[in-house]
Amino acid sequence: MSKFPISISRLIDAFATLPGIGEKTATRLVFYLVRSGGNVSRELGEAALNLKKNLQFCPRCRNITDSAECVICADMERDNQKICVVEEALDVLAFEKAGVYKGGYHVLHGVLNPLDGIGPDQLTISDLIMRVEQEQPTEIILAMNPSIEGESTAMFITKQLQKFSTVKITRIARGLPTGSELSYADDTTLMAALNGRKEF
Amino acid sequence: MSKFPISISRLIDAFATLPGIGEKTATRLVFYLVRSGGNVSRELGEAALNLKKNLQFCPRCRNITDSAECVICADMERDNQKICVVEEALDVLAFEKAGVYKGGYHVLHGVLNPLDGIGPDQLTISDLIMRVEQEQPTEIILAMNPSIEGESTAMFITKQLQKFSTVKITRIARGLPTGSELSYADDTTLMAALNGRKEF
Repeated sequence: MSKFPISISRLIDAFATLPGIGEKTATRLVFYLVRSGGNVSRELGEAALNLKKNLQFCPRCRNITDSAECVICADMERDNQKICVVEEALDVLAFEKAGVYKGGYHVLHGVLNPLDGIGPDQLTISDLIMRVEQEQPTEIILAMNPSIEGESTAMFITKQLQKFSTVKITRIARGLPTGSELSYADDTTLMAALNGRKEF
Repeated sequence: MSKFPISISRLIDAFATLPGIGEKTATRLVFYLVRSGGNVSRELGEAALNLKKNLQFCPRCRNITDSAECVICADMERDNQKICVVEEALDVLAFEKAGVYKGGYHVLHGVLNPLDGIGPDQLTISDLIMRVEQEQPTEIILAMNPSIEGESTAMFITKQLQKFSTVKITRIARGLPTGSELSYADDTTLMAALNGRKEF
């Protein structure tokens, strides 16, 4: 039995569908909105309603954009010789925030996962192949997550790209993250760190 | 520099104003919404926009309601001889979920906090006094949070209610919460637990 008005329980339910937000957090958020000025909930509501307006995929790199071309593809100063392949648009943001990479991207929108019915056709792999054929970049950097699905997707893409003999295919390094402690690292990370060792 | 469409950054900003949600969580939530079907963000948007429609305070207990009287005050089976005074409407929910109390409530909508400019006039204390005068309950249960502000608010209300000689004023117990460990408890909690001891 709900002890609260419908408009409150409705927003609690909507918040609670979001990942990482349970009913308790959702309730706190809604009561925060109830207490705060009307602008806060109105802005949130309008922003959520307008979220998908004009949103589309960049025809080149499949990043999310609201114009004909995404901000990164439209940037003439970026190195078009490199394409960094990532799982999600969020991963592009991670690289851009770090400011460590000045090439282009290609967003797969997922990884191969046969159990969930995600095959190559559900991802943007064929777009990547076509793009490599047309643009002839010198390097493809595979930057999938270090998971089983990420690894098998990287291997699948590598196989597909082997026909382009001029393109170098690389994979971002696996090892200990900055600030971590060796004694807490898991076995696979330690193995990757050891195998990936470089001359000092 | 935002690498993402305006509609996305706008919703990220809106989420990030909520308590406990930083920019990183906000970004994750928005990308979850982008990936999921249009219904999820539309439902969230509409629910947020409609949140404050018809919301008002119950004229009797000051709880939040969307009808003339709140669900609890409208419930004829509740014990009107008891009034449990709480800080926020959320606290009513906590008691109701626990299902341990069948009396009425009075929501203060805050606690006395002179530094933040919250005096008795910013709370619903005078409504409570008037209500006690009219309804003549037998017991007022003070259930403010165990904080300095909560304690001083409880003391202030107690003083105001002393003129009603027939009403018993009680305060909910402080002590060790269920499932906690004595060795982890802080000094004030231990003191409160010791002072509040009962014959076994």
